[in-house]
Amino acid sequence: MPVDLSSIHHDGSGRYVKTLANPSIHLGDNVQLRIRAGLDTPVDRVFVYTCPDGEGRYDEMQPEPGGRACRWWSIQIPISMPQTGYRFLILVGGIPYWYNASGLHDFTVTDSDDFRLLADYQSPDWVRQSVFYLVFPDRFCDGNSENNLRNGEFTYRGETARACRWGEPPSPGGLAKMVEFYGGDLDGVLSKLDYLSDLGVNSVYLTPIFTSFSNHRYDVVDYFNVDPHLGGNSALIALRRATADRGMRLILDIVPNHCGVAHPWFQQAQADPNSRTAEYFTFQKRPDEYACWLGVKSLPKLNYNSLALRRAMYSDPDSVFRHWMKAPYTIDGWRIDVANMLGRQGASQLGMEVGRGIRAAVKTENPQAYLLGENFFDPALQLQGDFLDAAMNYAGFTTPLWFWLTTFQFSTGMKRELIQAPGGFSTQALVDSWQAYRSSIPWQIVNQQFNTLGTHDTPRIQTILKNDPARVQLAVALLMTTPGVPCIFYGDEIGLKGAGLDSRVCMAWDESSWNHALLEDYRRLIHLRRTSPALSEGGFQILAVEKDSFGFLRDADQEQIIVTAHRGASPRPAGSLAVAQGGIEDGAEFVEFYNNRHALVASGRLPLPEQPAGAMIWIRKI
Amino acid sequence: MPVDLSSIHHDGSGRYVKTLANPSIHLGDNVQLRIRAGLDTPVDRVFVYTCPDGEGRYDEMQPEPGGRACRWWSIQIPISMPQTGYRFLILVGGIPYWYNASGLHDFTVTDSDDFRLLADYQSPDWVRQSVFYLVFPDRFCDGNSENNLRNGEFTYRGETARACRWGEPPSPGGLAKMVEFYGGDLDGVLSKLDYLSDLGVNSVYLTPIFTSFSNHRYDVVDYFNVDPHLGGNSALIALRRATADRGMRLILDIVPNHCGVAHPWFQQAQADPNSRTAEYFTFQKRPDEYACWLGVKSLPKLNYNSLALRRAMYSDPDSVFRHWMKAPYTIDGWRIDVANMLGRQGASQLGMEVGRGIRAAVKTENPQAYLLGENFFDPALQLQGDFLDAAMNYAGFTTPLWFWLTTFQFSTGMKRELIQAPGGFSTQALVDSWQAYRSSIPWQIVNQQFNTLGTHDTPRIQTILKNDPARVQLAVALLMTTPGVPCIFYGDEIGLKGAGLDSRVCMAWDESSWNHALLEDYRRLIHLRRTSPALSEGGFQILAVEKDSFGFLRDADQEQIIVTAHRGASPRPAGSLAVAQGGIEDGAEFVEFYNNRHALVASGRLPLPEQPAGAMIWIRKI
Repeated sequence: MPVDLSSIHHDGSGRYVKTLANPSIHLGDNVQLRIRAGLDTPVDRVFVYTCPDGEGRYDEMQPEPGGRACRWWSIQIPISMPQTGYRFLILVGGIPYWYNASGLHDFTVTDSDDFRLLADYQSPDWVRQSVFYLVFPDRFCDGNSENNLRNGEFTYRGETARACRWGEPPSPGGLAKMVEFYGGDLDGVLSKLDYLSDLGVNSVYLTPIFTSFSNHRYDVVDYFNVDPHLGGNSALIALRRATADRGMRLILDIVPNHCGVAHPWFQQAQADPNSRTAEYFTFQKRPDEYACWLGVKSLPKLNYNSLALRRAMYSDPDSVFRHWMKAPYTIDGWRIDVANMLGRQGASQLGMEVGRGIRAAVKTENPQAYLLGENFFDPALQLQGDFLDAAMNYAGFTTPLWFWLTTFQFSTGMKRELIQAPGGFSTQALVDSWQAYRSSIPWQIVNQQFNTLGTHDTPRIQTILKNDPARVQLAVALLMTTPGVPCIFYGDEIGLKGAGLDSRVCMAWDESSWNHALLEDYRRLIHLRRTSPALSEGGFQILAVEKDSFGFLRDADQEQIIVTAHRGASPRPAGSLAVAQGGIEDGAEFVEFYNNRHALVASGRLPLPEQPAGAMIWIRKI
Repeated sequence: MPVDLSSIHHDGSGRYVKTLANPSIHLGDNVQLRIRAGLDTPVDRVFVYTCPDGEGRYDEMQPEPGGRACRWWSIQIPISMPQTGYRFLILVGGIPYWYNASGLHDFTVTDSDDFRLLADYQSPDWVRQSVFYLVFPDRFCDGNSENNLRNGEFTYRGETARACRWGEPPSPGGLAKMVEFYGGDLDGVLSKLDYLSDLGVNSVYLTPIFTSFSNHRYDVVDYFNVDPHLGGNSALIALRRATADRGMRLILDIVPNHCGVAHPWFQQAQADPNSRTAEYFTFQKRPDEYACWLGVKSLPKLNYNSLALRRAMYSDPDSVFRHWMKAPYTIDGWRIDVANMLGRQGASQLGMEVGRGIRAAVKTENPQAYLLGENFFDPALQLQGDFLDAAMNYAGFTTPLWFWLTTFQFSTGMKRELIQAPGGFSTQALVDSWQAYRSSIPWQIVNQQFNTLGTHDTPRIQTILKNDPARVQLAVALLMTTPGVPCIFYGDEIGLKGAGLDSRVCMAWDESSWNHALLEDYRRLIHLRRTSPALSEGGFQILAVEKDSFGFLRDADQEQIIVTAHRGASPRPAGSLAVAQGGIEDGAEFVEFYNNRHALVASGRLPLPEQPAGAMIWIRKI
């Protein structure tokens, strides 16, 4: 593009989308859209394109009275549909440019990357101010040894259950790993709420807790009872009360895609084709040929062609989804296991139909419930306001960050050959990957996406980054400062390590083993995140991309934050960063978060000191 | 990107997607995917990414035994879902690139531009070999003066119907234009089938013919009778027989979004809230406040929340859609008026639900029926295999071409201010616009898209191009050689002119007024198009983009065609075109379509003579 148009910016945040009374939008509202460009950017005219009821139209935006750092254009648009897409047409020197969520384009774009507004969308408003903590219950804390599994208590899939000492190394592999129990339980979580409060997190996500034979408990045998080894239903009630007393949110993990082979639903269905639950499953040939999760026979797939199953799982008042949302449990939401595969079986693709049903049921119980789905791939179709409130943002945050900080790698199909691409990810590739996934969903959802540096299903960030403290600091800073809701995988804050399933290590409670510097870093960043409007709800604009560095702006009416990220082995030399295109005027003063250094914007640039690998966070209160 | 990767190519055509028995794909099939790259392109490994039932996977493709001009990789993938998306991951010098329908990317892309295969999709196979001719019946030919409207026969919307002499100038504007009748009729079309056959077209699309008060007949008053002024039902039967005898296809225009204010459905509904058809419409306040098409009160909008309306319009065996598909009419398909708005009314967005119902009904009558929708905007959601077989491809073909050949312009909202951007469209912008729209839909549908240079709803191409013969030749050549089905707006082939509604001029039958050179050009190109596998079903690859020129390849197993297009006022100097990246080997011989010149590929390049504004078409039979 012939001229510098990088100062043209809009996103779905509050500086750019003004609603009448509060951040939510209702059918019949008018919403003000605003877009800005630098004082020197030669913009002739600005139009907004919308497509009410399928008929596209351009309306001209009006310039606002002059700003000091940039020019603004605005317009009121009526909200008549559940989802309103829009993009901008900007004439610059007689040439048309389209600006949508994927950026500026000089050709006619499709609707796919339009900005989007959801009307009458029941958002879980508390999520935007949350920092989550992910607990794998068997491995976090043993609060009550009386409920611990007895060594050899049962045999499952040919393996004898084993009671392990806290912290003892797990088996190297195989099915035996699945029946090793360390004794962690809900009383343990309850006993550590002070620790969590001190850390600053205000929301807890527990991986599955319903009765199962494995330690991960994704092979549910009873959707209506908390596993006795975790303390049973009474322990959940106690934990719920205690978290509520602290204003802490609590979400649970549900497995509606499949159940455990030992579940009575499946046992009956397998034994008797005329049983009530026979239609819950898909048998090619009884008893042993049936649909299951990725070919794993211990996880028979639930078949949502069965309307009775839909009632039992989510739509009846006493269904699984709704049961746990009622008193005395009143959980604040669900994380849906393999939401990506739910209801999908070859010719029968019921994913969105089931998803809409789940949403309706969950929001009937609590409009503020958080409906989070697991999805390692592209969850965009599930994130348009009618199913999930968020996905676990592996594809849109985590994996591109890993690839940028280490090396690009992936596994092939069923052979699981690990392929590494040593050339890895350029900084532009990281930024573009994030943008691609962000641009496919409404900003209201972007704000709620569940960001992690790793989970119980991935290696830990320490291991991925080979314990390099600078890059870990950088990763944590990006987790806390980019759009989406941060979630800390238990123990990451003290430096736990682990690859593959061994990321599910026992939490270390001997403080002498902790990485105290890292813990303090987490604590301060969590505090910043929870008290910063720019970080929790602000806009996002990339300011610069260099070979090993990038800088971005988070902006809100009250605050501007500039983050500079550097991955290089050698420091980025001292040198200024262009910030005028972020609508920041000369004279603006920023204070750095880690070192308290002050810097003054001059000639459109923020002076920066030499930066070793890591992040700097420059904050300006307005 | 550091190295030239332009030789990496895949699209949905037969060289790259091999099906077992025939071009259609069924659930349970295996399909072979192939991708190619130049011999010198440093590709390490190639993988295909698919996402069966929502779970992504990479599978490695295998190199095929060496080709002379390029390397090929292939893999069999199982077709287990109604729609299978896929993209490629290509490792080049240790760096990962994703290749999808929008091109090559060095960051992780979303699924939105995946290539897509439709299984058990009922495609109208005849369409790919068709060239259409668009007839506006009142203006094409008066075959029977006895059915002509009598001057003053009725008054409609305050205007008295007027019988006009063939070719006399229409009113300058206003409602009077709508009730000027020139006497064209279906007998007229029938009488000119020799003309159409001689021209080479084999499919006819008639704009509305059902009884109405206006000459455009989009304000239907009787969905079950052909307008008497067009000859009534018997004239349609005769035309149907005559076209069938010639192997010509015939599609009609249907208006399911609204009806005319004089339609008995609306008259009853307006008069009586308890009438059977009251629920077919949306009254804010009886009698005069009701939903209508873009605020035009004479076109009340049909409300598809009414299940009775759905039955009457499309799902009952004797519904409007199905009636005309049965004997003796047996029409070959429908063009759906304002398909973009159908079933969409603010909070109630039933467009896709109604669309799926229409498709099911139409394909029940005839699986080979062509379901074409009007859509000036982005029709991608309607083109995923479950609603339309094609859209009128304004956004994906016509308007970018206009913008490239003239100037970018658009109208604002309801004020209809015409805005022109003199900087216009670069050649890259044309190519990228086409690609953006192509990449959002499955190739099976790309092949069926309804391409025009103009219609009864736009200015004529002669007028748009200010009668510049070179640019008209260029536009016609691109219409006939790019992916999609060409349609000729009646009279464009003899050089008719007209802007706005005056594009609906009377066809000239005095041959002395014809542009015979243009007509001959059309005739030859239609013949080429209908006999060329590369043009009707071949792949599409951009070979070069220059300031005022571009070149592309259409390739099939039997044939390769290279088109070079130049818009410049001064000729493109003689000079070769790089074609090796198209998988074309040295020694390949091409023959130019217009001038019969021969050219031999050497050192990976096709020598080209000086090229004035216009197109050259280089053909190689294999």
